[in-house]
Amino acid sequence: MSVLRVGMVGYAFMGAAHSQAWRAVNRVFDLPVRVEMTTVCGRDGDAVAAAAQRLGWQSHTTDWQTLVARDDIDVIDICTPGDSHAQIALAALAAGKHVLCEKPLANSLTEAAAMVQAAASAAGLAMCGFNYRRVPAAALMRRMIADGRIGQIRHVRAQYLQDWIVDPQFPLVWRLQKEKAGSGALGDIGSHIVDLTQYVTGQRITGVSALTETFVKERPLPTASRGLAASRDGASTGEVTVDDAALFIARLDGGAIATYEATRFATGRKNALRIEVNGSLGSLVFDLERLNELSYYDSAAAEPGFSTILVTEPHHPYMDAWWPPGHIIGYEHSFTHQARDFIEAIATGTQPEPSFDDAYSVQLVLDAVQQSASSGSGWTHVRGGAVSAVRRTVEAAPPPVS
Amino acid sequence: MSVLRVGMVGYAFMGAAHSQAWRAVNRVFDLPVRVEMTTVCGRDGDAVAAAAQRLGWQSHTTDWQTLVARDDIDVIDICTPGDSHAQIALAALAAGKHVLCEKPLANSLTEAAAMVQAAASAAGLAMCGFNYRRVPAAALMRRMIADGRIGQIRHVRAQYLQDWIVDPQFPLVWRLQKEKAGSGALGDIGSHIVDLTQYVTGQRITGVSALTETFVKERPLPTASRGLAASRDGASTGEVTVDDAALFIARLDGGAIATYEATRFATGRKNALRIEVNGSLGSLVFDLERLNELSYYDSAAAEPGFSTILVTEPHHPYMDAWWPPGHIIGYEHSFTHQARDFIEAIATGTQPEPSFDDAYSVQLVLDAVQQSASSGSGWTHVRGGAVSAVRRTVEAAPPPVS
Amino acid sequence: MSVLRVGMVGYAFMGAAHSQAWRAVNRVFDLPVRVEMTTVCGRDGDAVAAAAQRLGWQSHTTDWQTLVARDDIDVIDICTPGDSHAQIALAALAAGKHVLCEKPLANSLTEAAAMVQAAASAAGLAMCGFNYRRVPAAALMRRMIADGRIGQIRHVRAQYLQDWIVDPQFPLVWRLQKEKAGSGALGDIGSHIVDLTQYVTGQRITGVSALTETFVKERPLPTASRGLAASRDGASTGEVTVDDAALFIARLDGGAIATYEATRFATGRKNALRIEVNGSLGSLVFDLERLNELSYYDSAAAEPGFSTILVTEPHHPYMDAWWPPGHIIGYEHSFTHQARDFIEAIATGTQPEPSFDDAYSVQLVLDAVQQSASSGSGWTHVRGGAVSAVRRTVEAAPPPVS
Amino acid sequence: MSVLRVGMVGYAFMGAAHSQAWRAVNRVFDLPVRVEMTTVCGRDGDAVAAAAQRLGWQSHTTDWQTLVARDDIDVIDICTPGDSHAQIALAALAAGKHVLCEKPLANSLTEAAAMVQAAASAAGLAMCGFNYRRVPAAALMRRMIADGRIGQIRHVRAQYLQDWIVDPQFPLVWRLQKEKAGSGALGDIGSHIVDLTQYVTGQRITGVSALTETFVKERPLPTASRGLAASRDGASTGEVTVDDAALFIARLDGGAIATYEATRFATGRKNALRIEVNGSLGSLVFDLERLNELSYYDSAAAEPGFSTILVTEPHHPYMDAWWPPGHIIGYEHSFTHQARDFIEAIATGTQPEPSFDDAYSVQLVLDAVQQSASSGSGWTHVRGGAVSAVRRTVEAAPPPVS
Repeated sequence: MSVLRVGMVGYAFMGAAHSQAWRAVNRVFDLPVRVEMTTVCGRDGDAVAAAAQRLGWQSHTTDWQTLVARDDIDVIDICTPGDSHAQIALAALAAGKHVLCEKPLANSLTEAAAMVQAAASAAGLAMCGFNYRRVPAAALMRRMIADGRIGQIRHVRAQYLQDWIVDPQFPLVWRLQKEKAGSGALGDIGSHIVDLTQYVTGQRITGVSALTETFVKERPLPTASRGLAASRDGASTGEVTVDDAALFIARLDGGAIATYEATRFATGRKNALRIEVNGSLGSLVFDLERLNELSYYDSAAAEPGFSTILVTEPHHPYMDAWWPPGHIIGYEHSFTHQARDFIEAIATGTQPEPSFDDAYSVQLVLDAVQQSASSGSGWTHVRGGAVSAVRRTVEAAPPPVS
Repeated sequence: MSVLRVGMVGYAFMGAAHSQAWRAVNRVFDLPVRVEMTTVCGRDGDAVAAAAQRLGWQSHTTDWQTLVARDDIDVIDICTPGDSHAQIALAALAAGKHVLCEKPLANSLTEAAAMVQAAASAAGLAMCGFNYRRVPAAALMRRMIADGRIGQIRHVRAQYLQDWIVDPQFPLVWRLQKEKAGSGALGDIGSHIVDLTQYVTGQRITGVSALTETFVKERPLPTASRGLAASRDGASTGEVTVDDAALFIARLDGGAIATYEATRFATGRKNALRIEVNGSLGSLVFDLERLNELSYYDSAAAEPGFSTILVTEPHHPYMDAWWPPGHIIGYEHSFTHQARDFIEAIATGTQPEPSFDDAYSVQLVLDAVQQSASSGSGWTHVRGGAVSAVRRTVEAAPPPVS
Repeated sequence: MSVLRVGMVGYAFMGAAHSQAWRAVNRVFDLPVRVEMTTVCGRDGDAVAAAAQRLGWQSHTTDWQTLVARDDIDVIDICTPGDSHAQIALAALAAGKHVLCEKPLANSLTEAAAMVQAAASAAGLAMCGFNYRRVPAAALMRRMIADGRIGQIRHVRAQYLQDWIVDPQFPLVWRLQKEKAGSGALGDIGSHIVDLTQYVTGQRITGVSALTETFVKERPLPTASRGLAASRDGASTGEVTVDDAALFIARLDGGAIATYEATRFATGRKNALRIEVNGSLGSLVFDLERLNELSYYDSAAAEPGFSTILVTEPHHPYMDAWWPPGHIIGYEHSFTHQARDFIEAIATGTQPEPSFDDAYSVQLVLDAVQQSASSGSGWTHVRGGAVSAVRRTVEAAPPPVS
Repeated sequence: MSVLRVGMVGYAFMGAAHSQAWRAVNRVFDLPVRVEMTTVCGRDGDAVAAAAQRLGWQSHTTDWQTLVARDDIDVIDICTPGDSHAQIALAALAAGKHVLCEKPLANSLTEAAAMVQAAASAAGLAMCGFNYRRVPAAALMRRMIADGRIGQIRHVRAQYLQDWIVDPQFPLVWRLQKEKAGSGALGDIGSHIVDLTQYVTGQRITGVSALTETFVKERPLPTASRGLAASRDGASTGEVTVDDAALFIARLDGGAIATYEATRFATGRKNALRIEVNGSLGSLVFDLERLNELSYYDSAAAEPGFSTILVTEPHHPYMDAWWPPGHIIGYEHSFTHQARDFIEAIATGTQPEPSFDDAYSVQLVLDAVQQSASSGSGWTHVRGGAVSAVRRTVEAAPPPVS
């Protein structure tokens, strides 16, 4: 069996999630390739050494530039914040590596476009880490839509609701600062629902009208222990420069209309990524807080009603590798599935999904949303086709995983 | 006990619902006034006679002009389609009657404004029939918000989802023709969520950005038996001239932001009026398909979680008049509660709610939505204060019913 | 149209529920007979006069013996506590009246048997008021089982959970005294789940093993205003002489096995009558707190899952008479449906269901439960066939209402 | 850091689940001891070699007798079927090893008693693998009950519902043969709800009345590929000699009464372990198919209702080691938590729970159930105190994990 040697940059939340996926993937799935967790990279030498030990990496380094060029590395896995995605990905692709890059693809359209172009001509394969596509219920949703089970799509209702900064005393962490995070709820979680709805419907968003809001405009500066140096000049608060919430309505290129909402102020909603799709023949509903379930309305049923499919049967996407029916899986398994699909794509030399192109299409939507919201100019068309031809329909897509 | 003699115009769906309310209200509630179902009015003499018999009216007539002026009538209850609301209401108010008018107030802003002005100077009291305010769980929602139980409101998420015209073979009934219905999903059910969200939050919508869509643009003409004459010139289909669905995002005057969606194409959703409100201290969620329940998240609870309040306790609005806890009520009871509140307002000489002013504020929002959607001009301010001073805050409102 | 003149004995909770049914039934359903609410009867003259006024009865009396023999009365509706059912029903049947008797049929097997025998030879028709059979979702459950939709039945899981006496300071009302109430949770609510499960499955319980418990054995005496004279000798508490909860396992004559639980100590459950039936091809689940819904699992579905049927479609039992789909009904409507079926049976001269025979079969089960629980003797056979031949299978039953 | 060298016997379903726990536990939790997956043992040399490779064991063997005595092994993890638990555990304890033994403890009371006695005098620590105690929501349920949050317990309602053998063509696998499996649904899944209800309530079952049923009495013999040799004499079916379902009612030593049901014939229920506990002050409800949730009714809340606690907060048992709030975990994590607690008990020299004593108490209940069901003798006392003094109350228990 051949070996795929991985170098991972970043070891925080996403790094931990990716590490468990690399550790588990060969133990759960029969794959033609064996993963080797070769090196983990981070800026702080002591911290990255500890992370390597805990997360299961054979070695560690603080020098990503060297890492991406090493002969004993096949894959670069980018788990850093968005502002360093482009430079690492470009270097890795130039060095001929396969690249798995966390979402969002980049903090600017310019960077993202450069990454798409680099991927188009690279020897390695490039994929963006919209892991929720690999939740079995979401993959099943896509499969059922592609199979025509709900007919022609009319409505998309997408929400990503969290509440972790409702408290105005929650500190001004980097995710609330524009220069570091790019945007707030919009880029962080709004990007997920844009990608996931485009994925399950096979349609692309063509236009939006949006508003964004920052409910708490000033927050305490974080203490150093929280990862940011406290202000030295006595100031105890700082300005929040990103959105707390983003709302938009949209049209999709297959004729559907949609509402989107991403917020960190939905008190009581912890990780409620919820998507409802209404078609001419039925409907499908997904909620990440109950990620093992998919709700399905089939108007052709003898006694129709929304049914709760427990997505744990062997014929459901990815689930034949896990436990018997009814034994549920968790959030982290989506990363294991992502690793499996990435490895299989590399092994077979096919383009993994979502490609950088797919991820770029998400960036274009977010850009239109910000433009609409900031200018108050109302309806804003999503730029399309700028970088390369992108797949447009779910019919033309490779068959969904089983 | 004094008597309130009612004359009702219209006897279809709403007329049946109002009739059962008039029949039941004195048997359920202790009221200072007894209702007499004096006369029902309709255009077709035989049909209105049959309706009077079935619905429990003492007499019937085909002449509303005479009815509204009769000395033996105290209340005119208007249950006709929207295009005749204004003329009946204006005549009844001019004749000194109390008026209960079904929603929407009118089909045009001009008519609606005239009704507001007439009500302002009339001897009788005027109320608009947004009956869902009288669903106990909705009334409880308002009371809890007014009591500060969820703090400052940040998000409103409102949907009214139905699916009765998903089938493209469903005929072109009058509700799908602009000249008769004014608008489609927007006015019919969108008006309910505009009113209900303004009611429960005590905030008014100040601006919107909207889109509307007609998914099925041509439909079979209805057969005569369906209530519309079939085309004589051989044409078997006609154009749908109203919206099938309306989506908008909005800002409210208390700082909240909101998404609204009204549609008749949400396959599987029969009467899903759903409202979620997120505040700084908690959240509340209502769903008309489970109208005896209110979901409440209290972030101050020891172990917070969304709880399902079964709104059947004696201390819940209206419920001390009904059955023991856990014995649920239905859709029609909202009309009984509406009748009770209307009667009490008349008996005490206070303004019933929603006033024509309140209903006019809904019209203004719908107008802004249509303007935004049709022009594609994006953000549209809701005109305000045009007719008379309107109550703006829930704090200033009369105490909610108990 | 002919007229059915009703005399009702008792006007408390059940009397109010029955009265609204008599008032509504001709306004909702097209019936060949018109109901006249002739006379209501009660022991307290002033109270019954007030009740007549409020509930809509034309006259009132304190003399039930005379009432049941009057020529201008066709139906006697018995809404008194169980200890007077037998004497009123026997007199009414002897006088040739049709009889609708509230459940449970009687407080003793001997009385119940006499009622069954009287009904068998009477000119009038007799029916017992297990109203939950007329909840549309329960009637649909029976229809789907009779139609073979879930195959051969294996499991019945029945609970009737309330919590109104969890507080040990709740007073010793008559329902907690054996001499008046016969039994506690068992007869009051356990009887409902015995009848309803026998009804929906078409199977009869053949044997049980049971336990009963009285958690709070001593309670404050109620004040006189609560309807019971306070103790004169200074004692402030009295003994609870009925069960707070009853649990039993059972076998049914069609091969199913079952668990039953009736309790007034299920904190938080207000009126949770819940029945789950598992068959060889599917399952059905009902919950009275969400009585407009029926949950259905069809193992032959392409993607099986428990679906929530919103039982508000015109093809669902009784629902074509009410509102459009999605507009739910309440607890009281089960009585209106019961009145409709009773009237139709009288009009067509057919035996209404549940007959006194059916109700007697419930008494036999309750008797076996008490015997098993009190003796600790374990498995106890349910006596059968003692009074008259009773229908045993759902196949032989008249077609369910549509 | 010291090392704990594990030898595992068996590598099927439970072996896979335990292996992932041993692999993950040091990467998720900060522990004073590091696990080494030293050797896996099975009867088939090739198969165990493949399993070792896939599951991550350093070596493999087919000789458990030698394994349990090796100096380089500290822990024996028994994942075989129940008929070999006793011999392996006794040998391992005699050799001074710590033992983790899958449930049920043994197939006979005699074997189980011997294991309890051996554990009592052994140098190593012994624990039984009732892993569902380590589901965070179940552990939280216990903590809340121990903290008095629902007061005095009155009702326990426990079900373990599956449906994997509803099809009569499902073959006669070893789990359906008494000589191999001991019992059917009762021992396999009934044991879980007996242990879990005793665990969360801190009460022991003192008596039961039971029935068991085998719905499908003859099944096709499995093909050899299914793991059992097909009949050579031409017979194509064989007798099912275990229960398909077991039902019982019970009393607990703290005054609660209970219903239990374990079945493999609840069509549509895949892994529905459901427990509801009603106390004098509130209620708690758990469902393994939604294992990240705990439903809680607090009668002292301002507006009481059953709330859905999403058990993913850092202060919930075990959850500070995983992902941010709202990011759910799965079935397998219960084994990781079990490994963590076992390791911590070994590291601190304290008795891990559930002890063999605890597991023996479950065996006593199952024995009473079978006796009651087979004799039809009704109420059967659960033998107690036979082996050693066992903890009786949750108050005396070590503090629950946090």
